[in-house]
Amino acid sequence: MNAEIITVGTEILLGEIVDTSSPFIARRLANLGIDVYFEDTVGDNYDRLESTISLAESRSDLVVLTGGLGPTEDDITKISLAQHLGLDLEIDKKALKKINDFYATYALGKPSNADMMAKYIEGAEILPNEKGFAVGMFLKTDACDYLVLPGPPVEMQYMFTNFAMPKLARLTSGSSLIDSRVLRFFGIGETELEKDLKELIDNQTNPTLATYAKRNEVTLRITASGETKSEIKELIDNMEKRVLAIIGQYFYGYGDNNSLEEVVVNLLKNKELSITAAESLTSGMFQSRIGNVSGASEVFPGGFVTYSADAKEQLLNIPTEIIKKYGVVSSETAEYMARNSKDKMKTDIGVSFTGVAGPDSLEGHPAGFFWVGLALPNGQVITKSVNFAKARNEVRDYATKTGFKLIYDNLK
Amino acid sequence: MNAEIITVGTEILLGEIVDTSSPFIARRLANLGIDVYFEDTVGDNYDRLESTISLAESRSDLVVLTGGLGPTEDDITKISLAQHLGLDLEIDKKALKKINDFYATYALGKPSNADMMAKYIEGAEILPNEKGFAVGMFLKTDACDYLVLPGPPVEMQYMFTNFAMPKLARLTSGSSLIDSRVLRFFGIGETELEKDLKELIDNQTNPTLATYAKRNEVTLRITASGETKSEIKELIDNMEKRVLAIIGQYFYGYGDNNSLEEVVVNLLKNKELSITAAESLTSGMFQSRIGNVSGASEVFPGGFVTYSADAKEQLLNIPTEIIKKYGVVSSETAEYMARNSKDKMKTDIGVSFTGVAGPDSLEGHPAGFFWVGLALPNGQVITKSVNFAKARNEVRDYATKTGFKLIYDNLK
Repeated sequence: MNAEIITVGTEILLGEIVDTSSPFIARRLANLGIDVYFEDTVGDNYDRLESTISLAESRSDLVVLTGGLGPTEDDITKISLAQHLGLDLEIDKKALKKINDFYATYALGKPSNADMMAKYIEGAEILPNEKGFAVGMFLKTDACDYLVLPGPPVEMQYMFTNFAMPKLARLTSGSSLIDSRVLRFFGIGETELEKDLKELIDNQTNPTLATYAKRNEVTLRITASGETKSEIKELIDNMEKRVLAIIGQYFYGYGDNNSLEEVVVNLLKNKELSITAAESLTSGMFQSRIGNVSGASEVFPGGFVTYSADAKEQLLNIPTEIIKKYGVVSSETAEYMARNSKDKMKTDIGVSFTGVAGPDSLEGHPAGFFWVGLALPNGQVITKSVNFAKARNEVRDYATKTGFKLIYDNLK
Repeated sequence: MNAEIITVGTEILLGEIVDTSSPFIARRLANLGIDVYFEDTVGDNYDRLESTISLAESRSDLVVLTGGLGPTEDDITKISLAQHLGLDLEIDKKALKKINDFYATYALGKPSNADMMAKYIEGAEILPNEKGFAVGMFLKTDACDYLVLPGPPVEMQYMFTNFAMPKLARLTSGSSLIDSRVLRFFGIGETELEKDLKELIDNQTNPTLATYAKRNEVTLRITASGETKSEIKELIDNMEKRVLAIIGQYFYGYGDNNSLEEVVVNLLKNKELSITAAESLTSGMFQSRIGNVSGASEVFPGGFVTYSADAKEQLLNIPTEIIKKYGVVSSETAEYMARNSKDKMKTDIGVSFTGVAGPDSLEGHPAGFFWVGLALPNGQVITKSVNFAKARNEVRDYATKTGFKLIYDNLK
């Protein structure tokens, strides 16, 4: 089965928006074993949209259309497709009621074209929009199958994952259900991870495995199909076990929308442990990421940015002779920073970062070399050095994540 | 004149890469008055690439091809286009020498297809690649004009800006030179900016104006064409003056790759002023952004993250009665935080942030409400409140930028 993705929207052709929907859809189609041969972007123009649809149905088994389902006169996707197919539009009463209820209290009134969001092409299966108003559709024709999705990523992604994926899984594998689980890894690159899992990846059938590189992280999506939820869960559980037996040391959590800071802050909340930090190299990035997580104040009272050697001495009472003897970029300084920040803030845990962001070297250490310190509730202090020879802000990001991973490994 | 952008690469169709090249090119074509009607992505496959080229030349005046110019067997763009046009490939000796010189010392040896990077289609104008090896091309045919560019964004963007833009400018405006300048604004939204500049935008001919929304910022690109550099500079200078006469209060700097933190850190360096911060709401984000800038240690010794009320009292000696009387989210607390951090760190400037990140309200203030404090070298302390009702991390980003802008406005 091969597919084509058509994105509709003049704002994309003007370069005002980066199309992130096509890669989102393409990745998941690849996961289902569906080959994407073409992606097209076309503006809000009847003739050009129709010619694109015509071409797509002549060469593709599945045509995915996203965008142009909204409430303005520019939103022409449904009407163009219906005209092209010689079919009528019908109205989904449930979606219409939702639209009318919303606009009844809307200050600007109901847009003239709003009802279009509730319309679908006769014979199509309606895909409900749980995050917005415009319904999606799945439609089988003699030429090809059409999947029509809204443009806003939040709506499209939810609809695709929850309604379109199971449908496509049935079409491709014959199984009626599909599910996937995302595992997150830090401290291993995508290439290395694929090498470590080579045997599993080369022999994958059901479940399938797909890796995806994030910023200094890698995720692995395990996708399985089957007849029942419990059958799928067992398939995924077994594969997860086999994966973690090989690369478990780099694992820290689940989900596409997760992060090290979220995992760690929630871990601290569950264990009722408080945390502080003393940051040199990272200059506040670690504490800022803690603040990213809603409710972080439960475990984080505050901390220190000690960029200069003076600040380390003054704010954290690190003895001058320690810095003189070992240097600011040293296990000893990292240890003092972690312990003294913990003592000063009376928290259960203290974390420290000191190193060379670059581009210049420091104290004989190359750019990218850093120490992370971790003072634990029992008084023990662990330090760890890493050499990550990348650009300045990648080093800072990597150091920040190394700190979170060190906490995760020691407290999980 | 209308254009079509074809992106070549199977990795895009697999969703492994987000295509940022098409929006980059599309924005600049829009700026030149060239309408992009279609964008296509096709994999590394001769038949499908050729059919896409055929269709594009039948409906577009300008066809921009990016990607597939590299040294592997998958890189088929030039050979496909040459075959389609019935033309031969010739070799650019200068590019070939550069390739041979590089691979002479390359541990893995020279890839078998490497010479393809030096090839061009007979009759085409060569666009040199200053950031890589694969040459680009500009080729006029009876059907359309072809612009062929490498895939890696660094190479493509440099080649497009420096070699393709002037060429396209000549084609569209008849002028031989084109240049543009990007102005950066904070504190005004894109819609509001366009409203304020409506008269200038509606009547634009040369220079043209194009706005672009960034995260909580807006940029404005002024593009002018003319016969000489000084003529263009004068056109842009005059337009900049007219723009700044209207919205100068939001302006802070120039360039596509600039930022508030870079402008402010460089301003502080030039004035030899040091800075510290006390962050509650932003939890280290302001100091982390300072650390983004290479050489920040010249002006920034370190500072405080005071997330809890206790930390504000303990680390900054803010009197308990001030916090009790006015609350942590108050002008008074912001003032104490800024002044006391400055005194403690013995810097010239102290900045403070206190507010409600959300989702919950605090002390009767809604999520998104915050105070920024600025202690100046002369002892004066300024405070400013903002109500920015967006999601948690947008509020924190906006507050951080408000701090930088406040410094810029008071020190520039």
